[in-house]
Amino acid sequence: MERADKNLAFMLQYENIAWYENGKVRILDRRIYPTKVEFVECTTHQEVTQAITDMVTQSAGPYTAAAMGMALAAYECRNMNEAGQKEYLRKAAYTISHARPSTVDRMVRICEGCYQAAEIAMAAGLDVPQAIVDHTVRTNNDRYNKIKKIAKHLVDMFPKNGKVLTQCFGETIVGQMLAEARERGNELKIYCAETRPYFQGARLTASVAKDMGFDVTLITDNMPAFAIQNEKIDVFTSAADVICQDGHVVNKVGTFQIAIVSKYMGIPYFVTGAPDLGHPTVESTHIEMRDPDFVLQAMGVRTAMEGVKGYYPSFDITPPHLVSGVVTDAGIYSPYDLRRYFEEGNGGEYEIVV
Amino acid sequence: MERADKNLAFMLQYENIAWYENGKVRILDRRIYPTKVEFVECTTHQEVTQAITDMVTQSAGPYTAAAMGMALAAYECRNMNEAGQKEYLRKAAYTISHARPSTVDRMVRICEGCYQAAEIAMAAGLDVPQAIVDHTVRTNNDRYNKIKKIAKHLVDMFPKNGKVLTQCFGETIVGQMLAEARERGNELKIYCAETRPYFQGARLTASVAKDMGFDVTLITDNMPAFAIQNEKIDVFTSAADVICQDGHVVNKVGTFQIAIVSKYMGIPYFVTGAPDLGHPTVESTHIEMRDPDFVLQAMGVRTAMEGVKGYYPSFDITPPHLVSGVVTDAGIYSPYDLRRYFEEGNGGEYEIVV
Repeated sequence: MERADKNLAFMLQYENIAWYENGKVRILDRRIYPTKVEFVECTTHQEVTQAITDMVTQSAGPYTAAAMGMALAAYECRNMNEAGQKEYLRKAAYTISHARPSTVDRMVRICEGCYQAAEIAMAAGLDVPQAIVDHTVRTNNDRYNKIKKIAKHLVDMFPKNGKVLTQCFGETIVGQMLAEARERGNELKIYCAETRPYFQGARLTASVAKDMGFDVTLITDNMPAFAIQNEKIDVFTSAADVICQDGHVVNKVGTFQIAIVSKYMGIPYFVTGAPDLGHPTVESTHIEMRDPDFVLQAMGVRTAMEGVKGYYPSFDITPPHLVSGVVTDAGIYSPYDLRRYFEEGNGGEYEIVV
Repeated sequence: MERADKNLAFMLQYENIAWYENGKVRILDRRIYPTKVEFVECTTHQEVTQAITDMVTQSAGPYTAAAMGMALAAYECRNMNEAGQKEYLRKAAYTISHARPSTVDRMVRICEGCYQAAEIAMAAGLDVPQAIVDHTVRTNNDRYNKIKKIAKHLVDMFPKNGKVLTQCFGETIVGQMLAEARERGNELKIYCAETRPYFQGARLTASVAKDMGFDVTLITDNMPAFAIQNEKIDVFTSAADVICQDGHVVNKVGTFQIAIVSKYMGIPYFVTGAPDLGHPTVESTHIEMRDPDFVLQAMGVRTAMEGVKGYYPSFDITPPHLVSGVVTDAGIYSPYDLRRYFEEGNGGEYEIVV
């Protein structure tokens, strides 16, 4: 068991923790973190699916949770014959993949990888749930190694002891970025936009930066313009849910707005990740509209009067002319030149989810 | 008693209610409105001052609360001789004026007006607290009449059944704007940015629009760019804490950012109010930095981990090149041409607080 692996230990500490063990999947409840550290315990893959739908885990967390859901499904059907197990896992893969409408494609690929690992394990007479866990450790390690490379290229763009503004931002890349900066003795100051309505910036990104001992300042989502101007922030960076090959960036709502403001202020915006094979252009992307009522509250407390309507686009789209560079594992590309990333032999089996 | 006056009734319904009666000042607690309708009851002018400091009342509310605090001070010293009363009121005016660092100048002028009304009442042997109340009714009515004129010019700028985005925005101008639109049969759709960290947009502006029967949608502060683009919002408008004579607009933090985004999106930004005699240029303005910890919570619930720092500029400054027009009681001016407002004989005794 490779759980002591350094990369994985990092993931378990800073990422959205989800893990299969002994017929159960435990998922850190990111909806209440860091106020409370509690885990949602799932005993069926349907419960894992529901937890993903319910945003128990966020950022890159749902992808690991999906794989752990597959391991749990393998445990559930362990007493069936091989054909029965395969059919059960196929159905489970479908269920889990459709937990959130915006991530179906990527989830399908992750569940497919788990299914293949299960097939190999069955043929070899190995423990199937454990084989899926081992496969996930390997793919996550591969992902982590790629993200480490991204982090190196990203930190190259930061001035010594500079000020870096983030929006939402997965813990994975933020953690790797800060670890890289620390290694170089670059004591960055981190500004996190709180990222309403879920407060991922306040609850997750700021916590990682604080945990790692950096100077971190939280701002509300209406403050980036003032803060860039008055605190003299050097650079804006975010991860992305999708980087289209035509340079459009789909990321947590608010990214587009800060990119506009960054351009106005004359500071660069770097997006981290890799161009998406599944999205040659922005035309194939879909912005998920979530429950509008969620905007009418904050941290569970109602803010607006009855009858006021909400509005909740989960993502927005930043056009390439607002993107200063796409920071990939293979270096930094112009958003207009992303096909070269694939032409140069990058990408491939595992996608980079930052 | 003029409390039945139509303008004043409007103010009592939609503005930040503060009123003196029988040795007490009651102030609607806007910190918990609209979830709860509760009043803070003050029996001394020091308590009124503290309530203003503590943000019990907001927008134009503190100015009426200050005047009511002066009425209460007059009640407190009613048994002193005339010289004693004057000295007591002078001290009270100083105390009340300094409730908030960003509004001292305007508060001084309001308390001075109340003091003068008190002097006249003493000379005439009238009831002093009542004289201050009557004076406040008159000045508020004057203010309301001016704001009605502003509302007419503002609604001229809106397309029929158009979509209007607001940021923070006092209830006074929003109420008058909507009343004017309704009279013209212009069924506007209102989009309110929630305005963190105090949620004035969610709690106050959205409530007024809803109360008045308009279609109102709340968005978080990271959504204006997406909403302008995807909902095809026609115009952005805000009030201002200060409109400098050089066209710089000091208003609730976030205004600057939405003005940048509006320019990028090609929609106009109209600010309502009047140029400020006390601020020939932006150089004399001061951005109050409030308690940074307030940003680390939302509706009283902590969002960030211990050790994360907050940052809370109460206002920001929008430069004139982002302002499409300054909508005053005397018409719409270019932000570069505001001295003409005074040259044409406008402004004068009472300032317009929208």
